[in-house]
Amino acid sequence: MYYSKLLIPTLREDPGEAEIISHRLMLRAGMIRKLAAGIYSYLPLGYRVIRKIENIVREEMNMAGAQEIFMPMVLPAELWRETGRWEKYGKELLRLKDRHEREFCLGPTHEEVVTDIVRNEVKSYRQLPVNLYQIQSKFRDEIRPRFGLMRGREFIMKDAYSFDADQAGAEESYRKMYEAYINIFRRCGLTFKPVEADTGLIGGQFSHEFMVLAETGEEAVASCGSCGYAANMEKAESRSHLPGHPELVSGSLSDESVKVTLLPMERRLTPGKKSVEDVSVFLGVKPQQLVKTLIVRGDDKVVAVLVRGDHELNGVKLSRFLSCTDIQLLAPSEVEEVTGAPSGFSGPVGLKGIPIIADIAVKDMFNFIVGGNERDVHLVNVNLSRDFSPDHFVDVRNAAEGDGCPRCDTGRLNIVRGIEVGHTFKLGTKYSEAMDATYLDAQGSPQAIIMGCYGIGVGRTMAAAIEQNHDKDGIIWPSAIAPFSTIILPLNVGSEKAYSVAREIYNKLTEQGTDVLLDDRDERAGVKFKDADLLGIPCQIVVGDKGVNRGVVEVKDRATKRVKEVPIEDLLTLKFQI
Amino acid sequence: MYYSKLLIPTLREDPGEAEIISHRLMLRAGMIRKLAAGIYSYLPLGYRVIRKIENIVREEMNMAGAQEIFMPMVLPAELWRETGRWEKYGKELLRLKDRHEREFCLGPTHEEVVTDIVRNEVKSYRQLPVNLYQIQSKFRDEIRPRFGLMRGREFIMKDAYSFDADQAGAEESYRKMYEAYINIFRRCGLTFKPVEADTGLIGGQFSHEFMVLAETGEEAVASCGSCGYAANMEKAESRSHLPGHPELVSGSLSDESVKVTLLPMERRLTPGKKSVEDVSVFLGVKPQQLVKTLIVRGDDKVVAVLVRGDHELNGVKLSRFLSCTDIQLLAPSEVEEVTGAPSGFSGPVGLKGIPIIADIAVKDMFNFIVGGNERDVHLVNVNLSRDFSPDHFVDVRNAAEGDGCPRCDTGRLNIVRGIEVGHTFKLGTKYSEAMDATYLDAQGSPQAIIMGCYGIGVGRTMAAAIEQNHDKDGIIWPSAIAPFSTIILPLNVGSEKAYSVAREIYNKLTEQGTDVLLDDRDERAGVKFKDADLLGIPCQIVVGDKGVNRGVVEVKDRATKRVKEVPIEDLLTLKFQI
Repeated sequence: MYYSKLLIPTLREDPGEAEIISHRLMLRAGMIRKLAAGIYSYLPLGYRVIRKIENIVREEMNMAGAQEIFMPMVLPAELWRETGRWEKYGKELLRLKDRHEREFCLGPTHEEVVTDIVRNEVKSYRQLPVNLYQIQSKFRDEIRPRFGLMRGREFIMKDAYSFDADQAGAEESYRKMYEAYINIFRRCGLTFKPVEADTGLIGGQFSHEFMVLAETGEEAVASCGSCGYAANMEKAESRSHLPGHPELVSGSLSDESVKVTLLPMERRLTPGKKSVEDVSVFLGVKPQQLVKTLIVRGDDKVVAVLVRGDHELNGVKLSRFLSCTDIQLLAPSEVEEVTGAPSGFSGPVGLKGIPIIADIAVKDMFNFIVGGNERDVHLVNVNLSRDFSPDHFVDVRNAAEGDGCPRCDTGRLNIVRGIEVGHTFKLGTKYSEAMDATYLDAQGSPQAIIMGCYGIGVGRTMAAAIEQNHDKDGIIWPSAIAPFSTIILPLNVGSEKAYSVAREIYNKLTEQGTDVLLDDRDERAGVKFKDADLLGIPCQIVVGDKGVNRGVVEVKDRATKRVKEVPIEDLLTLKFQI
Repeated sequence: MYYSKLLIPTLREDPGEAEIISHRLMLRAGMIRKLAAGIYSYLPLGYRVIRKIENIVREEMNMAGAQEIFMPMVLPAELWRETGRWEKYGKELLRLKDRHEREFCLGPTHEEVVTDIVRNEVKSYRQLPVNLYQIQSKFRDEIRPRFGLMRGREFIMKDAYSFDADQAGAEESYRKMYEAYINIFRRCGLTFKPVEADTGLIGGQFSHEFMVLAETGEEAVASCGSCGYAANMEKAESRSHLPGHPELVSGSLSDESVKVTLLPMERRLTPGKKSVEDVSVFLGVKPQQLVKTLIVRGDDKVVAVLVRGDHELNGVKLSRFLSCTDIQLLAPSEVEEVTGAPSGFSGPVGLKGIPIIADIAVKDMFNFIVGGNERDVHLVNVNLSRDFSPDHFVDVRNAAEGDGCPRCDTGRLNIVRGIEVGHTFKLGTKYSEAMDATYLDAQGSPQAIIMGCYGIGVGRTMAAAIEQNHDKDGIIWPSAIAPFSTIILPLNVGSEKAYSVAREIYNKLTEQGTDVLLDDRDERAGVKFKDADLLGIPCQIVVGDKGVNRGVVEVKDRATKRVKEVPIEDLLTLKFQI
């Protein structure tokens, strides 16, 4: 293609609306434009990237035996009522009425629709397994859409749904999708990690997220360098271990070889010291010698949650344990009502009337510090059993850098950041039972179909690729998803000789199937270099007068900026491979 | 692909919901399923057809220099207010509110959005022309969606928009699209005709519809066998000619060589005779000797319209002449108020208070019959000028079979039926002026960009292909858009030898890039033949035990049902070309 024939409205300045790198660079490279909050148009260059990702996805899905279909975006309320999601989904489900006042929604996901198709068309075990997928625009009415394509309201997604007769089949279908996802993101040229994930609102039995690793990623991922275990923060398991007391380096209270001396509990005045940091500084101890007491409401049940001072409460784990959908910290006035003391001084000793849930890391602590349930008072040298006993020990904290791996005995967890680009769920029979999607087994008895669902954010993959691959000058596309694989830069289109060499190279490469962009604009060399770097096309061929006179052009690698002189002859005879 | 691995839920019976052939056959062939009124899912086989059509469209659009983009489906009200269409569009525009109560609509077409992109990004004449297109789901909330994909609410469309600096450029852009459309429908294997069309609600300067010809088509097309003129009914021009009086075979009143005798006007009793048919039978004359007087309200203006007895009023032509958007016949009670007589007896003689508009064909009539504005009375031997004078002579009737061609002097019009699958508009500056989309010309002055827009109904093209190509047994796909080009039918998959030949042929053809479906189901031969005919795959290869023993298979053409014995060897060595 000729640059001058394409709408590539690059921007010199950073647009004000963009908060993250991928958003900024996609706007600057003229790839997308905002139409409304969280709603974007893809311009020609951006859409070329989308189509390349789509094609990789399509090929791998087909290869894995999935069949492409295309479902509507406007979906009738009745189907969503069958699964109860019409009521449960919340405001992200954009509801609307047609001219006859019938209720519809814009599809944020298609479990209901695809299950409806399958229950109508699949009757016998002989028709299973079936895996149906589509690539389509979805809509989720996010309350605060942001970060460009990263958290938009309208977005392009590949969603696949598998239907199996039995658990073994369902797991095989899941495995095929898992492998297809590995192939897809590898072919897209991305560094990524599949991690165990929580099943959340979609529900189901188990689940993986595919994370593109990038420092700017909005999610934390815990992974073990030793055994390959990886999980997102919501899910990453913690194990009990013992970094509690400075004198102890290993062992635990249940380990009889370790001797610890339980000191007598003391009351200490800590005037105005409410935070872990303030208390530990004031008392001259480390945060990990403290235990935070958080008073939390899960749906309509109030509980006290104990977490080591340097640990973070994990709301998803807690709500899973409490089987509740909403977790809130109590307001200070409510805390005072429950504990008798201002918030910041809550503690488990003598706490009455609400269950106490302790994180498993607390189990290994002794002689620790807690709030005194009294203004300006903390208790030190508190010990389990002797001074209080939690009702439950549960893993309710975020995994932390250096934690022991929950799967192997040798590894420790690293925390890295990532961007979720794919998600696989083994759903089980959640939807098929709600919607009565059954098949007749070999004995003629009806059985619920076992489902899985598998999503890839196509636009998000594009954004994640940029978050992972860029420098100060612009994007550095992985070759497979670059809008063009090569850009030819004739530095002076007025120079007949050099420009005709550029065109000759363009024709030759195009002819042999390379995706080439020829910058035929009558612009200064500086402008062309800047735009080429910004657009991020992996290979640049610079055609200058001087070089052409010597029979050479410069081939520059966008990522490394390494330049190589190549004889024109070698390019034209394809002796030199781009 | 293996038949058993695909979801192809064929139906033996005609589904009750389907009113037309394409709808019925798409349902029966398991290509689509209804989700809600006018909203369909495409199943694997149906979506293969869609993707083949899309790819032809995409290739031809790219070849014509159009650039693919992708705009959102959820569009903000503000843009639609700029052109006034938020108010004007009516209920087909599905309006909705997001969680923040901001107004949006589902895009039924994208002139506003694309013009917004171009006005923001195109500043100079040097950036023009630009032609942007997309392939996307649209939504129009039709009051009575019907006929499957033919008149759905959610539908897949290719829409392109051209932007030019001057009229000559705009016409060149239009011409390129016109030619691309010819290529597209030709490559799809369809018999079609581009016809002149009215510009309707989209507005603009001129327009063509691309009609796939089929007896079942919902639109009538007038075309001249002599000069190639073709137009849809709304638009097809009529010319004045003179089949008026039985004694006259040629000439007109303005032709001085023709002598006519104007007889005296007479009042005749026609008790209860209101329709053209009743009156002409009662008086023993031909319908073309009558003139109907229709009392019509255009927006809020009432007029009398005169049309020859055997002609039909064309509402689009009349509303264009009256510059109104809504045309309604008056209710009988209102007619009585205006004319003083029951409806059925209206006439122009002595009619007061409202303008009289006569169709141009009336100009050539003499001694004709009209209503008497009196119950049970008609007037015969009425003549223009002498008895009354219309305020205007205008072409306000439908063209009719055998009418003289409005463009050439020799041809007569044929009326054929067709299905509109594409529509091109030269819009001019309607949208660019409303939205202030300007560019700076070479002198630095701002000028309105000149636009065109160009649509193709992708699903509709699929439906039209079936309306045009089917027989009593099912679909007969044109090769280029068939879901598969060849189906292999091993009549007995239990027969090891024959089935292995079938697989060998399948592998060979697949290897060389043919799109083959292997019917690997353990079904009776009759079932396989029936399904193969229904699905409409152009070439069937029948592999039976007896043939295999003789080293041959049968190659059957779906359209002609002609069967040819072909040596297996020739198929495997590609000596015989499918």
